[in-house]
Amino acid sequence: MKSKAVFYHAGCPVCISAEQGITAALDKQRFEVEVVHLGEDSSRLSDAENAGVKSVPALVIEGQAYHINHGADLSALK
Amino acid sequence: MKSKAVFYHAGCPVCISAEQGITAALDKQRFEVEVVHLGEDSSRLSDAENAGVKSVPALVIEGQAYHINHGADLSALK
Repeated sequence: MKSKAVFYHAGCPVCISAEQGITAALDKQRFEVEVVHLGEDSSRLSDAENAGVKSVPALVIEGQAYHINHGADLSALK
Repeated sequence: MKSKAVFYHAGCPVCISAEQGITAALDKQRFEVEVVHLGEDSSRLSDAENAGVKSVPALVIEGQAYHINHGADLSALK
């Protein structure tokens, strides 16, 4: 079974760079990757917060949050 | 030919988490991954700086630096 990876972003240039650099480089044989635009889907903000996401872009792999560079704080998206 | 990915770290807990989470999740079919401990190999500090690395842990993929969470500033390793 594949592990879950969720990339949270807000469409910012830093987010796009992280998506193209890191998220695209993940092993799709082992990870099911979901991309969530928090600016367009604010219903997922609580999921992000519960996973420990403080800013975007962030990648949550197996429940662990990794903030990649810094585009915007989560609080700015509410 | 595989692309190059270099993970710079300093042995800190945040670094180890990022290595186990992100670096381990990269597609090894497409990326040749090198792990560099800047605390033990300070000769690589200039490589990291030239790639735009400001803090560790950081992953440089195809010349682009991605800072993953924050363990220590590069300046603290000199």
